[in-house]
Amino acid sequence: MTETPTWEQYLSANRDRYIKELLEFIRIPSISALPENAEDVQAAGRWTAGRLERAGIENVAVLPTGGHPVVYGDWLHAPGRPTILIYGHFDVQPADPLELWDHPPFEPEIIGDRIYARGASDDKGNLMSPITAVEALLATEGSLPVNVKFLIEGQEEISSPQMEAFLANNRELLACDLAVSADGLQWSPDQPQIEVGARGMVALQIDVQGPAIDQHSGLYGGIIQNPAQALAHILASFHDNEGRITVDGFYDDAAPITLEDREMMAGPPFSEEELRARLGVDELFGEPDYTPIERAWARPTLEICGLGGGFQGDGEKSIIPSRAMAKISCRLVSDQKPEEIIRLVKRHIARHTLPGVKVEISEAKGRATPYLMPPDHPGNLAAAKVLLELYGKQPFVTRSGGTIAVFSMILDQLGVYTVGLAFSHEDENLHGPNEFFRLDSLDRGQKAYVLLLHELAGGLYPSVA
Amino acid sequence: MTETPTWEQYLSANRDRYIKELLEFIRIPSISALPENAEDVQAAGRWTAGRLERAGIENVAVLPTGGHPVVYGDWLHAPGRPTILIYGHFDVQPADPLELWDHPPFEPEIIGDRIYARGASDDKGNLMSPITAVEALLATEGSLPVNVKFLIEGQEEISSPQMEAFLANNRELLACDLAVSADGLQWSPDQPQIEVGARGMVALQIDVQGPAIDQHSGLYGGIIQNPAQALAHILASFHDNEGRITVDGFYDDAAPITLEDREMMAGPPFSEEELRARLGVDELFGEPDYTPIERAWARPTLEICGLGGGFQGDGEKSIIPSRAMAKISCRLVSDQKPEEIIRLVKRHIARHTLPGVKVEISEAKGRATPYLMPPDHPGNLAAAKVLLELYGKQPFVTRSGGTIAVFSMILDQLGVYTVGLAFSHEDENLHGPNEFFRLDSLDRGQKAYVLLLHELAGGLYPSVA
Repeated sequence: MTETPTWEQYLSANRDRYIKELLEFIRIPSISALPENAEDVQAAGRWTAGRLERAGIENVAVLPTGGHPVVYGDWLHAPGRPTILIYGHFDVQPADPLELWDHPPFEPEIIGDRIYARGASDDKGNLMSPITAVEALLATEGSLPVNVKFLIEGQEEISSPQMEAFLANNRELLACDLAVSADGLQWSPDQPQIEVGARGMVALQIDVQGPAIDQHSGLYGGIIQNPAQALAHILASFHDNEGRITVDGFYDDAAPITLEDREMMAGPPFSEEELRARLGVDELFGEPDYTPIERAWARPTLEICGLGGGFQGDGEKSIIPSRAMAKISCRLVSDQKPEEIIRLVKRHIARHTLPGVKVEISEAKGRATPYLMPPDHPGNLAAAKVLLELYGKQPFVTRSGGTIAVFSMILDQLGVYTVGLAFSHEDENLHGPNEFFRLDSLDRGQKAYVLLLHELAGGLYPSVA
Repeated sequence: MTETPTWEQYLSANRDRYIKELLEFIRIPSISALPENAEDVQAAGRWTAGRLERAGIENVAVLPTGGHPVVYGDWLHAPGRPTILIYGHFDVQPADPLELWDHPPFEPEIIGDRIYARGASDDKGNLMSPITAVEALLATEGSLPVNVKFLIEGQEEISSPQMEAFLANNRELLACDLAVSADGLQWSPDQPQIEVGARGMVALQIDVQGPAIDQHSGLYGGIIQNPAQALAHILASFHDNEGRITVDGFYDDAAPITLEDREMMAGPPFSEEELRARLGVDELFGEPDYTPIERAWARPTLEICGLGGGFQGDGEKSIIPSRAMAKISCRLVSDQKPEEIIRLVKRHIARHTLPGVKVEISEAKGRATPYLMPPDHPGNLAAAKVLLELYGKQPFVTRSGGTIAVFSMILDQLGVYTVGLAFSHEDENLHGPNEFFRLDSLDRGQKAYVLLLHELAGGLYPSVA
């Protein structure tokens, strides 16, 4: 009679299979932003659901939201123990510019310790960890130390437009004592962190219409407004020359950075030189009077994510373009309200529209409220204990400049905070070309989830029991 | 024995063939701006050369220039009579945005009295007229009333970068008493004009480089300069809110508009309402203190012809783009020098470059000096007489806001002015989608060239004999 393996032995023994499964998952181009990939997002949802079932999760379902679906599943056989909602997403960012990828973005390539592909790090690689952790526990111990629910969405990369309503409509199904996110970062491969905040977001597109069709720049140049010029006028008006946003009222609701915040943010080591080298810029740039970390974690932004108009090919074309377009997005910090920011930006655009063109503004469906969680929340203390065990180091307390829209929604609709426990790293080109994920993050993530579930069963975290 | 037809009968009898030939000519996508179409430009040159030969022109050759070729041919059997250099071009503008064409741009479509296709009006339709006129005369009369040389180029739409050197190197071959251009406009289908001026042009591309690859707008937003923002800052700085160019020194050399100029430009009727309706704009826009006609004919411009950067697809992508790009072109008026304008614009860009990005400026190869010809030049008087006969109306004296780079080069290198005798119209979408040419302009153009050659043989134009 063979002895039952431990969960650690089980994870080791199945490592190759897990990697193969992850590659299969990555090959589904589940780009939530692009309408033409909507069926791929569905397929990634079905894949996730199937994978949960194979892990031993019950009541698995792909649930409609009115947009991209949500995958739910649970294991609720630990009476008297807390219920943990594990969060992640199976959608990914668009892959273009394709020409900058060394390999096709949806044909994952393992080079050394890294899987290169869109979604490898954000969030498919991370998402595997809680699933395989649960599988290993169920396969070796026959049970989990706590009740677990999975909430895995397909619209994170477009700011989760249908998730607020979905959560509101499914409060009972999703009721829990704490949420844990398998989407997020560690500070570095040998330094853990607890992320206690994320910025909010709103996004919109500005379309400027000039003449009905492109016109000859000789015959009409100087007579009519050029929509690209009018767009540039709007875009340039968003910031002063030092990087402050000049939209009236934009900063009004932003929570000031307290002395305590400053101290916290000055904690983790930060090398401007290393960052410059990694990004390939000669100097950093942004709002004066704030450190780069403060700007990224606790100050709002307005960025142009794309712009286009007229002739973009090689060579020249002597036209006044008919249209010009820009996509902008704002990251928000505590106490800023998405609706109010949209209102202010729209008003600003109207005030800076030159004569002779028409401007249309389309709002992106997704909006995210900023998120901030007490660093000493018991969930954070439990995660910190796990990270200390895994890394042999106390985690830094940090915030993210990024956005996970659903954290604030979970807080508002389900009444619980979301603890981050994920293992991506900032250098993994999360939204850019040549995204990659470190394979040992997979190993670490699996172990982390096993330890966390045990920890939450009674250790540091009695308050949720 | 059949009687020899008159040239008019000959033109009538061959009308269908000429249209068929024009369609064949148009099908060659001879876009000079796009490197991938270079062979098509060559093919259009060969087509033109073959067509000249079939018309009875001698010494036909496709001559190299270092860039797109020139087609030359002559008929020099009128001793003691003036030599007329007939100019035109066989290259065309790019066709995009393709989705706005009702028919594929290089598959000409005849609808009613119009041929729809890229290049139908600019300049292939026009160019047919002097060729068929010469053919008709040679076929019916066995000779031409004057000596004729053809100079047909393949780089007009990119401002003729190699033409200045080509003309300088071929002064003897091209020596003549007057040039006549088969590239240009009439005021309307029932109102002729003599165009006595054209604006000059310079063009350049601005590339702004931010981070080495696209970056996550959450992780790095607020920390580094956004190249699209930096580009917008540059572009917006080119004009004040009323449309004046704010590049230091830009207007310094521009010849002031004299009272006489104002009077001339106030001559032709101008309906702002009609223009607004045709272009589809609610209002005209441009430098205060000048009428729209003055702005188009005698004031310089700086226009954004294209811009791009970051994510331009449907939906959203939360990035700081790695690069952003704009193409700009300036139209110049008398006494402005292309090199000086390039220098001033470059200096302006350097002064308006924000920290944290690198800017590269590439100049387009072609530059055009502004062109202005005395309205009472004997060549203009000859053309005016022909137009009066054709239309039953005195032509308006006008200028073009457009650019025909080679006019100034011909003046500088060959010492002669170029008279415009061409039959496009401003509403024919010359550089835009659904370009078209009126078939009766073909009939009128042929007749005009026969009459002009006779006129120049001795009538109004003894000075060149």
